[in-house]
Order: sequence, then structure tokens, then C-alpha cells
Amino acid sequence: MSSRILSSQLPQHIGQRVALSGWLHRWRPMGAFGFAVLRDRSGLAQAVIDTPADFDGLYAESVVELCGEVVSAPQAPGGVELHHVTLTVISPAAEPPPFDLFRPSLNAQLPTLLDHAALTLRHPRQRALWQMADASMDGFRSALRGQGFTEIQTPKIVASATESGANVFTLDYFGTPAYLAQSPQFYKQTMVGVFERVFEVAPVFRAEPHATPRHLNEYVSLDAELGFIRDHHDVMAVLTGVLGAMVESIKSRAAGAVSVLGLTLPPVPETIPALHFTEALELVYKLTGEDARHEPDLAPQHERVLGEWAEREHGSAFLFVTGYPMVKRPFYTHPDSARPAYSNSFDLLFRGLELVTGGQRLHRYADYLAALDGRGLSAEAFEGYLEAFKYGMPPHGGFAIGLERWVARLAQLTNVREAALFPRDINRLTP
Amino acid sequence: MSSRILSSQLPQHIGQRVALSGWLHRWRPMGAFGFAVLRDRSGLAQAVIDTPADFDGLYAESVVELCGEVVSAPQAPGGVELHHVTLTVISPAAEPPPFDLFRPSLNAQLPTLLDHAALTLRHPRQRALWQMADASMDGFRSALRGQGFTEIQTPKIVASATESGANVFTLDYFGTPAYLAQSPQFYKQTMVGVFERVFEVAPVFRAEPHATPRHLNEYVSLDAELGFIRDHHDVMAVLTGVLGAMVESIKSRAAGAVSVLGLTLPPVPETIPALHFTEALELVYKLTGEDARHEPDLAPQHERVLGEWAEREHGSAFLFVTGYPMVKRPFYTHPDSARPAYSNSFDLLFRGLELVTGGQRLHRYADYLAALDGRGLSAEAFEGYLEAFKYGMPPHGGFAIGLERWVARLAQLTNVREAALFPRDINRLTP
Repeated sequence: MSSRILSSQLPQHIGQRVALSGWLHRWRPMGAFGFAVLRDRSGLAQAVIDTPADFDGLYAESVVELCGEVVSAPQAPGGVELHHVTLTVISPAAEPPPFDLFRPSLNAQLPTLLDHAALTLRHPRQRALWQMADASMDGFRSALRGQGFTEIQTPKIVASATESGANVFTLDYFGTPAYLAQSPQFYKQTMVGVFERVFEVAPVFRAEPHATPRHLNEYVSLDAELGFIRDHHDVMAVLTGVLGAMVESIKSRAAGAVSVLGLTLPPVPETIPALHFTEALELVYKLTGEDARHEPDLAPQHERVLGEWAEREHGSAFLFVTGYPMVKRPFYTHPDSARPAYSNSFDLLFRGLELVTGGQRLHRYADYLAALDGRGLSAEAFEGYLEAFKYGMPPHGGFAIGLERWVARLAQLTNVREAALFPRDINRLTP
Repeated sequence: MSSRILSSQLPQHIGQRVALSGWLHRWRPMGAFGFAVLRDRSGLAQAVIDTPADFDGLYAESVVELCGEVVSAPQAPGGVELHHVTLTVISPAAEPPPFDLFRPSLNAQLPTLLDHAALTLRHPRQRALWQMADASMDGFRSALRGQGFTEIQTPKIVASATESGANVFTLDYFGTPAYLAQSPQFYKQTMVGVFERVFEVAPVFRAEPHATPRHLNEYVSLDAELGFIRDHHDVMAVLTGVLGAMVESIKSRAAGAVSVLGLTLPPVPETIPALHFTEALELVYKLTGEDARHEPDLAPQHERVLGEWAEREHGSAFLFVTGYPMVKRPFYTHPDSARPAYSNSFDLLFRGLELVTGGQRLHRYADYLAALDGRGLSAEAFEGYLEAFKYGMPPHGGFAIGLERWVARLAQLTNVREAALFPRDINRLTP
């Protein structure tokens, strides 16, 4: 017997006898013969089975080897199928799966699907969602490495919360209370002092006690931070390029996934349209008659309205809103020197939902001491972080993209949990 | 003024006026003139300063711009220096650093250096250590992506410990006790059922209460797992290739770091020498006269002896020890079918220290139930994990490399903490 080939390689082996290995995706007995569909990491392959009794008692998802002759078959998936097949059972499934994996979509409620993640994730649609995540991470890293960024890995167990908020998980660190990092913010800024340009792809932890379709309590954050910028517009330019690279990476590395999901990927404009926060509120007023011009933040329904406007007026699925009020931003935010009540920060809306937050940070030590004091925070609690600024830091800024949210919006999922492998929420800690 | 260039680009600008930005690495007043050394992300540059009074009161590590004319100067670092320089202070350091960064090595004790990580990490030697880590991660991922592996990101907050041991950090998850993942072991195996070949680069957490120079309580684990193997030798072959790719990546991406550290990187043999556990103990007996042939594990001093033997006899810094007794391996370990008291597992010793652990895992559901029962563990506690095996899993195995330990051994550091950016140990939770 020849050694294993992948189902995607079948068209190069027409007329030859080959071995495929994978999962029994589907078994369709037709009386005197049957069709077996095998799934491997490259896709699906169909086999015509002349001795259907071989499949008696064999449940779907059993791991099998099928040896057979590759025959051109225009009606079969991939235009080829296996004939004259011998079956070897490598590892039988112990039970029939609780739902069918061969149907175009999984016929079960989301909680059931999440309970059975080990099985759910094998469905071609779920595989495709993660393949987009995989390609996105690769595109993110490659784009930044190409611009002189260094990858960092910073601690997730920390002595104090990043922000002043209370949404942190608490743990016992050898008898001392400690926290799970809400973001690598302090560390990535510190590392700008070392490498100028850094990125990190790592989990972040948010102990927010609400259950919504767009929040996870643990998610993957694609973080970047860079020094020697003029202001937040330099950060926005890097982000724009990175998003373009992520979409290109999906197109080249996960074309099959895009096809399985039936998606059209949004083009990333060379320059993403941008509105100042005050302009955004004026526009919302003009478009909806809702006067939120005194509000310090955008409401989700206003983000949707703005997203639709960007799509309509600029043909862009992406929209920057810049200059959020300082009062709504964390203490390390750099103010707009011309209008100090507003910040050099931005959100990126993707299809009307916040996808990325970023901005320029303070870089002078004295400014940090003043900002902490202004918020009633003690400088001592931030000692290790402040040291970076005490010893010279350039103007810098950065951003963070939520990986699962990115994939969920690309695939127009109604719930971000579908884009995570093993989601964590207030009610779910398993599997 | 021209826009900023990097110090490494100076040789391409001889005769031109350029702007450099970075940190004031060193200032040497010589009376009527002075030498300033600037550090940026690409390295160091020297500038001759005709108006040394400009530097009065300016501490080292201040962020500055130096504009000047690039002049060939064979005695200067890089063979060029700046003349006719104007200084612009971008962000002054607020205090003189507590230790000098311009000296070849940092003149302070390790605890002091770790306390001041924001500053310590700026030293060229410390930067070089992390550049090796950065290049290693890139080499690891590229090598595996090239072989059809998919990158995964699995949860770090988990409902039960991976192993039966007690070395887990406990946290409060919305009122429920939860744990920090000791490894992605269960999840990477589950994902073999989805993508066949997966890898993850992520933090792992070990609540081991001992303080040694080779252990961290949080570290970066380079994990891989692959299906459709014959046995652990297939895993060892993939690992060998990955290690080679990591060394090559350091050579190509971090050549400057290797030079700063004065290292000679070890060649990774095409086939790394391997000893069965029983052979290893016999060899230790022969080499040292110490009879450990009844022991179920290798002692650290025996690993050292074996490492020296591999170097001497095979010219290899790497040595596989295979077939550890089942009693010393976790419940998911696959036994050697010919000698069931021994396992299809391995450790990879690098310069006489365990660097990687790996092996073949059980893949049949019934084998898992028996293995858990045999160790007095309840199958219910592992329900989500066991589902992967209930529904068909191929023979598979994998390995995990500790990133910081890898860098520490490559650079022959006496303490693994130097290879971490912000190490966590039993006594250290900051910065």
C-alpha cells in the first residue's frame, strides 16, 4: 500500500491506488453499495463502497483508512472519487455523535454545540471559522514583523489591575492576592522603551459579569505598540495596513474557509474614513434626529448608524472615530493638545461595531504623575510601569484587536462564542 | 531636516545630513567636545558633539533626536559617526539610571535588575536575549505552518487541573473555583481531532512552590500535537526539524543578538542521538559507577552525565531519552506495546538539561477510561476532554518546549529568569 495522501491531493493521482486516512464524515448505504465520505485536514473525499457490510456498526467520526483507486467523477466533490475500496478501522467512535456533522449547518442550539466543542469544532463550518482566525494571526504578525516590530510575551499574572476598574479575576499567588491581566497595556508600553515597536498575541481576561452575544471573559488580543509617532494618526496608519494584511492572509491561506462560509471579504481602504468624536455625534443627530451631542461616549445604536453611513457614503466597512473625550479614556491617554478635553485616541468601527481601540499614550513622567493624581490613583501602585517613563520614553501609541470579535464580524456571526474554540463566559467554564 | 533613519542605515548615507532618534545610551564629555552614543531599535551610533554644554543636565536614557552629517570613521562603531550635530530633546529622563546601561554587562545583582526590568531590558545584552526568543517563536511557527499545522489559542482559565498533581493556581471565577492551565495538553489533543496538526504559543502556569534557577511559575510554552503518527518517533522527527528551524531563524533574524552575546549556536543533527531509558541508566552506571538502574526517573546529575556523553560521542548538544517508565508519566501516555511498563514517551536533553517533554498519547476511548480508573481518577471530571476520544481520534502525540529555558540554555545563562521579560517566581510578582 502506498503511504497516506490527503484528500486535496486526489486529483493528482487519477488512475493510481492510494490510501486516505481521516474521519468517517458520512456513510450512505444504498443497498448493494454505499458512499463513504472521509474528512481529513485538507477537506472531504468520496468513496464508492462495494461491500457495504464492512461499515455495519461503524459510527460516524470513526477514524479509518480507505485504500482505493482514484477515478475521475465530475459529480463527486473535488471531481474525483475512490473505487475498489478497502476499509481499515484505525480508531472506532464509541457512540454515534449526538448531532450530524455532514449537514451544511449544525442542527442544535448554541449551548449544546458549545458543550460538545470537541465534536462541534470538527464541522466544516466551525473549522472554517477558526481557519480564518489562524490566517488572521499569521497576517497580523507577518505585517508587523515586516515593519520592524518585535514579538513579546508578557505576564498574565499581575500584582495590580491595568485600569482602575474592578473587572479583574483574582487569584491566590502563594498566599498573596494577584490578578489576571486585562490587557498587556503596561507591558507593551514598557517594551516600546526597549524595542520601539512591539506586538503580542495572547489571552486577556475580563471579569465583566454580563452575558452578551459580543463579549467573552477570556479572549485573544492582538496588541501592537510603537514609538516615535507624531500622534494617533500614525497608529491608525499602521492599523490600516495590518487589517489589510489580515484580510489578504485569509484570502491566501484560508480561501477554502471563505468559500465554505460563503463570505465576501470586505476590502480595507488605503485610507479608512475618519470622523472626530464631535463630528460623529453631529452626524448621528443629522441622520437620526437623536441629540447625543452632550454625551461623552457613543451608544451601540449610534455606532451602527455610523457604520451604515460609512458603508453608504464611502463604501467602507471600516470607520475610525477619533478624539473621544478624555473623561472616558484611561489615565495613560494622551490629550489633544489643541483641545485638551478630547484625546488623541480612536475606535475603529467594523460594520458598526467597535473592533479596535487605540490611541496615543502619555510619554512624559511628569504627565503620568499628574494624570494619576488627577484620578486619585497612587503612583506607588504603578511603580514598575512608571519606571519606563522616568527613564525616557518617546511619543508612542498602539492598539488592540479582539481576534474572536474580528472573525465573528467577518463571518457575520450573531454570537462571538462561535468564533472562539472553547469560549469562557459568566456561565461557561467548560469544556 | 530629513526624516528619521535608523542607526543601522548610516553607512548608506555617508556625506548626507540625517536625523537619528533614540535613547542617549552614553555621554562622554571630553572638554571642548564630547561623544554621544545613541541607541535605537537597530543598534548604536556615535556622534561627535562640538557644543558639549547642550548636554548639561541631560541624563542617560533621555530620548533625543540628533541631526548631523554622516562621516566615515573606521574607529567608531559601525564605521561611521555623526558630525556637526544638533540636539533636540524629545523626552528627558527624570533621574539618572541606578546602573549604567553602556557597560558590556550590567553591574548589579539579579534581584535589583529584575526590580528595574523597564530599564534592565534596554541593555544590549538583555535585548539580545529576547531577540533570540522572538526569532525562536517565529522559527517554531514557520516550520510547523509549512507542514500543515494550524495555530490554536486555548483557554487558560479551566475547570479542572490538567494533571492530577496539585500545582495549579486557583482563582475565583464568578464565585466558582477555577484554575490556571498548567498546559494546553487536553485542548491540543482535542484539536488534533479537528485539524490533525496544531500548535500553540502561549503562557502556562505552574504553582510549584520551589525557587530554583531553572523554574518559572509562568512561562511561554511552544506546544505542538499531531495525528496519524506511527509512534513517538514520528513526533521526535518533527521536533528535530522544528529545533533546526528555530536555530536557523535565530541565525537569520537575530544575528546581531548572537554576536552581542558572543554565542556559537549548536548545530541540530539531522537525527538526534537517542537512548532508551533503560539504556540511559546502564550508561550512567558504566560512566559513573552510580547504580540507578532501579530508579523510575533520571536524576538531574545523570542528565548532565548523559548530555556530556552525547556531546563527546556524537558531537551533539541534544540527546533523546525515550521510553520512560509509565509510572512516572501522566495518565494519557501511550505504553510501549512490546514492554507495557515503559512508555512511548521521550525527553529531549539539551546540554544535559531537560528542555522538551513529549510522546505518543492514548487515542482509544476505552484506553482512557481504563487509564483514569487505574489511577483512581474519575472520568466525569474529564468529560469534555474524553469526548474527543469517544468520537474517534487517530494515533497522535506531541511535545512542549519551554521558551525561556531554551533561550537560557542557548545563551548558557545561570538563571532562567534572565531569559524572561518579566519573570514570575514564588517571591516575585512585579514589575
